[in-house]
Amino acid sequence: MPIQHTVVFRLTHPAGSDEERAFLADARAALTSIPGVEDFRISRQVSAKSDLAHQFSMVFQDDAAYQSYNDHPTHVAFVADRWVPEVAEFQEYDFAEA
Amino acid sequence: MPIQHTVVFRLTHPAGSDEERAFLADARAALTSIPGVEDFRISRQVSAKSDLAHQFSMVFQDDAAYQSYNDHPTHVAFVADRWVPEVAEFQEYDFAEA
Repeated sequence: MPIQHTVVFRLTHPAGSDEERAFLADARAALTSIPGVEDFRISRQVSAKSDLAHQFSMVFQDDAAYQSYNDHPTHVAFVADRWVPEVAEFQEYDFAEA
Repeated sequence: MPIQHTVVFRLTHPAGSDEERAFLADARAALTSIPGVEDFRISRQVSAKSDLAHQFSMVFQDDAAYQSYNDHPTHVAFVADRWVPEVAEFQEYDFAEA
């Protein structure tokens, strides 16, 4: 069953900064290079009822593709080198058909 | 600009209960009857990194349609009569194209 993997987050960088643009562009390049990642999208979170500012969303066709992404060296390196130092707060959610 | 309005939530009812099924069915019937609500979807939240269990997602074509939904008597009544007593915890997020 397909799974929509999402993370809503706020960066340590100011809104509109070069650092913000670089993080989003580098994330897109790194994460879309990993096999199994489909329909990768970056959205702005605009509700005043949350102070998180961006969302990454991607679809995996099954649990095996999701697990392979999690363990992929490009994902592991992105988390260690960029996510941990540049993300101030985040929440993951995964969605499946009801 | 289109806005994807979402809420991730956990009910007071046990998973798989008749009360859960009734809440989800009644929510779909009530909310999709409101003008401006497009692409209404109910998903299961399956990540162990959150203890929320469901998501409602809908799309509004613009802020006016969203505001009209928020103020609509059917929405206001649903929130007062069903959402407040039957939802234990929730988080809203709205997404727009980056």
